[in-house]
Amino acid sequence: MKKLIVCLVLISFHIGIFAQRSDNFIQYVNPLIGTQKMGHTYPGATVPFGSVQLSPDTDEQPINIGGKYNKDTYKYCAGYQYDDREIVGFSHTHFSGTGHSDLGDFLIMPTVGGLQLTPGDKGDSRSGFRSAFSHSTEVAEADYYKVLLEDDNILAEMTATTRVGFHQYTFPKSDNAHIILDLMHGIYNYDDKNVWTFARVENDHTVVGYRQTNGWARTRTVYFAMEFSKPFTSYGYKNFAREEYKGFWRKFEQSKNFPEMAGKQLRAYFDFKTDKNEKIKVKFALSPVSTAGAMKNLETEIPHWDFDRTKREGQTAWNRELGKIAVTTLDKGEMTNFYTAMYHAFISPTVYADVDGQYKGLDQNVHQANGFTNYTTFSLWDTYRALHPFFNIIQPKRNRDMIHSMMAHYDQSAEHMLPIWSHYANENWCMIGYHSVSVIADAIVTGNIVGVEANKALADAAQTARTGYYDGLEYYMKLGYVPSDKNSSSVSKTLEYAYDDWAIAQAAQKLSRKDIYKEFIKRSENWKNVYDRSTGFTRPKLASGEFLSDFDPLKTEGQGFIEGNAWNYSLYVPHDPAKMIDMMGGKKKFSAHLDELFSMNLPDSFFAETEDITREGIIGGYIHGNEPSHHVAYLYNWTDDSWKTQERVRMILKHQYHPTPDGLGGNDDCGQMSAWYLFSALGFYPVAPGSGQYQLGSPVIKTAVFHLENGKILTIEAKDQSEKNVYVKNVVVNGETLKRTYLTNAEIMGGGKIVFYMDDKPSK
Amino acid sequence: MKKLIVCLVLISFHIGIFAQRSDNFIQYVNPLIGTQKMGHTYPGATVPFGSVQLSPDTDEQPINIGGKYNKDTYKYCAGYQYDDREIVGFSHTHFSGTGHSDLGDFLIMPTVGGLQLTPGDKGDSRSGFRSAFSHSTEVAEADYYKVLLEDDNILAEMTATTRVGFHQYTFPKSDNAHIILDLMHGIYNYDDKNVWTFARVENDHTVVGYRQTNGWARTRTVYFAMEFSKPFTSYGYKNFAREEYKGFWRKFEQSKNFPEMAGKQLRAYFDFKTDKNEKIKVKFALSPVSTAGAMKNLETEIPHWDFDRTKREGQTAWNRELGKIAVTTLDKGEMTNFYTAMYHAFISPTVYADVDGQYKGLDQNVHQANGFTNYTTFSLWDTYRALHPFFNIIQPKRNRDMIHSMMAHYDQSAEHMLPIWSHYANENWCMIGYHSVSVIADAIVTGNIVGVEANKALADAAQTARTGYYDGLEYYMKLGYVPSDKNSSSVSKTLEYAYDDWAIAQAAQKLSRKDIYKEFIKRSENWKNVYDRSTGFTRPKLASGEFLSDFDPLKTEGQGFIEGNAWNYSLYVPHDPAKMIDMMGGKKKFSAHLDELFSMNLPDSFFAETEDITREGIIGGYIHGNEPSHHVAYLYNWTDDSWKTQERVRMILKHQYHPTPDGLGGNDDCGQMSAWYLFSALGFYPVAPGSGQYQLGSPVIKTAVFHLENGKILTIEAKDQSEKNVYVKNVVVNGETLKRTYLTNAEIMGGGKIVFYMDDKPSK
Repeated sequence: MKKLIVCLVLISFHIGIFAQRSDNFIQYVNPLIGTQKMGHTYPGATVPFGSVQLSPDTDEQPINIGGKYNKDTYKYCAGYQYDDREIVGFSHTHFSGTGHSDLGDFLIMPTVGGLQLTPGDKGDSRSGFRSAFSHSTEVAEADYYKVLLEDDNILAEMTATTRVGFHQYTFPKSDNAHIILDLMHGIYNYDDKNVWTFARVENDHTVVGYRQTNGWARTRTVYFAMEFSKPFTSYGYKNFAREEYKGFWRKFEQSKNFPEMAGKQLRAYFDFKTDKNEKIKVKFALSPVSTAGAMKNLETEIPHWDFDRTKREGQTAWNRELGKIAVTTLDKGEMTNFYTAMYHAFISPTVYADVDGQYKGLDQNVHQANGFTNYTTFSLWDTYRALHPFFNIIQPKRNRDMIHSMMAHYDQSAEHMLPIWSHYANENWCMIGYHSVSVIADAIVTGNIVGVEANKALADAAQTARTGYYDGLEYYMKLGYVPSDKNSSSVSKTLEYAYDDWAIAQAAQKLSRKDIYKEFIKRSENWKNVYDRSTGFTRPKLASGEFLSDFDPLKTEGQGFIEGNAWNYSLYVPHDPAKMIDMMGGKKKFSAHLDELFSMNLPDSFFAETEDITREGIIGGYIHGNEPSHHVAYLYNWTDDSWKTQERVRMILKHQYHPTPDGLGGNDDCGQMSAWYLFSALGFYPVAPGSGQYQLGSPVIKTAVFHLENGKILTIEAKDQSEKNVYVKNVVVNGETLKRTYLTNAEIMGGGKIVFYMDDKPSK
Repeated sequence: MKKLIVCLVLISFHIGIFAQRSDNFIQYVNPLIGTQKMGHTYPGATVPFGSVQLSPDTDEQPINIGGKYNKDTYKYCAGYQYDDREIVGFSHTHFSGTGHSDLGDFLIMPTVGGLQLTPGDKGDSRSGFRSAFSHSTEVAEADYYKVLLEDDNILAEMTATTRVGFHQYTFPKSDNAHIILDLMHGIYNYDDKNVWTFARVENDHTVVGYRQTNGWARTRTVYFAMEFSKPFTSYGYKNFAREEYKGFWRKFEQSKNFPEMAGKQLRAYFDFKTDKNEKIKVKFALSPVSTAGAMKNLETEIPHWDFDRTKREGQTAWNRELGKIAVTTLDKGEMTNFYTAMYHAFISPTVYADVDGQYKGLDQNVHQANGFTNYTTFSLWDTYRALHPFFNIIQPKRNRDMIHSMMAHYDQSAEHMLPIWSHYANENWCMIGYHSVSVIADAIVTGNIVGVEANKALADAAQTARTGYYDGLEYYMKLGYVPSDKNSSSVSKTLEYAYDDWAIAQAAQKLSRKDIYKEFIKRSENWKNVYDRSTGFTRPKLASGEFLSDFDPLKTEGQGFIEGNAWNYSLYVPHDPAKMIDMMGGKKKFSAHLDELFSMNLPDSFFAETEDITREGIIGGYIHGNEPSHHVAYLYNWTDDSWKTQERVRMILKHQYHPTPDGLGGNDDCGQMSAWYLFSALGFYPVAPGSGQYQLGSPVIKTAVFHLENGKILTIEAKDQSEKNVYVKNVVVNGETLKRTYLTNAEIMGGGKIVFYMDDKPSK
């Protein structure tokens, strides 16, 4: 972060109750972290949990070429790759850190000179409307992005509110300036992905429309309203799709100055004459509901043309959110790691409703969110682990709204299920398990949701877990495990269902629903059915009851696992590590087993078959770049070797998180990787969400002050913190030395002081 | 009509103020009229102006085969061809009488035995789900259709409310009965016409969804909700389109008992076990807004399973509408002609809004119709001539609502234009002119709309006529005509714009808007600019001012005309026949010219290039099957030979309208052909809507009693009416002998009595 752009006086004014914390937290946010290699983050402008993610896209890699999957697509999950040297334009929606993708709606690109309506070829910026750029002119801040488009010497700046992107382009003098609106562009695009697009020029400075796609989300539509600060002199478009039927539309020359455009592959342009250094601004609002909704969002959120004001307000909002935990660390790099992690944690889920609360539901009908803010983008297989537990502490109101959104999803779901991966009024079913139930259980057990709401959430959770036709569940309910000859990733599914079932049981116990408790506590032991004593690993089991004979614990695909091999996945019994350790031969043997995991040498073949993590995302055989092992370093706490948890956690923090564009060793996964960092940096981690417990690790911060929504203040202090002092001698909570390896939710939410006494020697 | 199915007592009760007219008018309605050859009507069930037109489709002729236009499609504009021997199913939307087409949404077909999910081949009903049928088992009544599906011995019956189709299928005993829901089916279909379809099985008897198409309407979506009277035992679907991306949907076996379906080419089925003669009923609601809207429409309009009640109520509604003019005629065939014409006149425009008044606008946003019923399906190039003038007399409230709908269309139009052809929240731009302005002028001049509403309508009309980029208007405004080297159908356009401009001027005069009057009365003389004295015809003129040299007054295409050659179109100066006649050489010469038109022999080449009228639609060179000549027979009234108008009108009535399936000589065109019949049969015709005048012809009825909405009663009597007495000796209006050849709107709307004294000799 190069400049201090936030006026501290203004912050103090805006952040209200946090006025005592007039710090500039956004100086420690670097949105470029994770944009190189496999982090899959984006550097553009967004506000906390914003619907708009206005960000540069550096290439257009179609998801398939000549019918074959294009491996390069994967790098472009968030549209931007740090190593690229060109920008094709700025689009308004981006997932943060996902391992599969979509979006990239409504690409805007300013140009001057002869009109080019194709992006051109990578490496040849003159071949299309793409432009060369350089990191030396690039500024990425929380809710602000700036870059010089070198081909035409246009300075591009952008900021955003929740539902509106605000562009500011500084042009050279030109009689032939253009702003291109590309309705074809998209992330993870392919020929037929655009189901339909539609645009209307309402007057000489306003355009509205929508884009409807069929991709990761099967039936998705995003509406927009776009306003220019200056009237265009002319406009037009080209339809790049074969047109089936023109009919009486032939009576118009539609390509130029005709106000209606519709088709599958459209690119529109708007012409201007510009003076030297003239700024043309564009406000671009999104809506899940309608163009009328987008127009309303635009007028409500940015009723002016003051770019700096919108930027200032957005950055103030970020300071307000980031300031909820004020930390000190040993060095500035760690400050950047911390607040950038918090920034990435507060990007998704995203608000999915108009300013009046209307939103599109899974049933494709328009619904009114009464009494809650509706959210989408729930990457739950990732985020149930640490992100939602983190929200449950530091964003409890939003977490409640997210659970409300999940329950609305349930009510609108044809399958009567809570979300697996909630995606813009769609369920994309990505990954396995039904981890909404974990998020709900964590909120119920900790008392964040209560009463009627909690009971409804529990009922939805239980019903979700009873959906026979879902992903092997019928077998799981009948046989106690998912048979590997009936369903893929059968061991992973069995293990995760068992944890989820335990979470439902915990919530049921809290709400005194003995019937549900009994049903699911029984199911929660099903993990035992796939544990193979002969190998010491969980292992694919056939419907016949036999284990699959051909078994390699290093392999993932076709071996009953997904995004993690038997070495990692076998440790996935977060709700009963003690029993697991017992079955695996006891504490000592287990501790050594973990040591082996962290120190083994993986064969090259391992990397050949793994797409979405780099060698940097791996420590020995421990894979931090994917989620199934995220709790593993904390399992030493169930042995007599807690000091190894402390050592490993500090090692992972040090090796997997860097304040650089390549600073993430794997996909950030909508904030889960960042949430792992945040918990671990603060000294504790929710191994089993729904337990109300957080296993102690080794904090990396020096001090942390939590400003909790309940008005309480929690201070964490790491006495004698240093690079070397990674071991915790003891932990004192409000004056009392802790006799256990975990904190409770009540200890955190009650406020007060937690002191970690750090040392350079393990306390064995 | 074979059976008297309406209980007279109930009619008396239901029709309220018309209780004195307890007649059974629907006995004279034969929906099969026009289903053979080129009438393009459909035989199925609909209520007056209903949103649902539930009707059998007898084949699926794609609009192109191997990229080439399929000429056979044309016959299937309304889905049904009387000569066919098979039914592919029953779909819910049909245009009535159009000369281009669309719709056919949501085909339902009941079958038993092995499931067939393709319709199969014409002529081989066993090859798919289509079934043989016979006219001997077919019953078509107003709002009731019945047929035996012979392949599987299933009796199909259907009726409808405004927004809900009601099916009743009587099955044989079967363990393997199916009801197919075909989302691929459509009229004027082609491969990519389905942009997207979506369906959800909500429970074991309810399905909702939508179909989105790109065709004559570019961006059209229709939503549905479907309820079965009996739970299905299982269900499934097949996607006939190449699927681009399946993603994690792979975790489901979606084809069977999975409640969500989405894609471009889907056919679903629902399985039942049936007893002998068991009836399974289906309620199928449509909505322009959403599946929630469709569900609400379903629950509001048919909150029961009593098929006979819905049929009874629908037929009562028809009797109420048809009874607005109670006629007697010389024979039953003419009664059938009359009431079937009235039935066809009261089908379109169709209601386009949910029960709560919500509808989708041209801007694709959802709007609330406040204080009016919103309509769509305005085939205005056809219907401005006689249908809307007929509504202006006998359906003035609906005509006001239709004008309101046109104004809403204007407000939502990106082009700021009144509708040309309003088509389910789309403008399809079909045909030429801007005849909304004629409908509006007719309503303003006759006082049916007044005040603010009238002034807004006039302003919309004037602005529409100033749209430079519309279809040669820029040239027309500059040069006084549409140049044939700049635009197709240039003469037709010039003539029609001139009339439309005159209509605007009349409305402006009525509202004392001198500015608008002056602007448009001047433009209304532009017809003179394409009149060529050297040939006595209007003729294509180049931008240079020269007439096109190569000119054949018998030809249409490429000759500056559309749907009518110079022989017919040159007579299109409805607003100033006297001047036209003068320019054409005076009354005597003109009368002889018309005689030549009615008696000439057309060469075979004429028929070769004419698609949509049969030889039966032509009298000499006069083409009744297309609209441009519809006023021509009445032009003798401007000569000294009014008796020829009387003779020609009676000849046209006799030759062009028959109470048989092939009874229409051309497309009914959303009721325009029928409206011509109605006016002419009643003895008068609106040659120039907006004049407030109706030219006298020769009535074919014996008596007619109009029950006007203003409470007045108008009686028309044709004294000494007979087959031979086609000439009118004189006309007496409320006791006074008429000294002119026309009636005024006031004379009609004021009620009273008009007596035509008929004779077998012309009054020369």
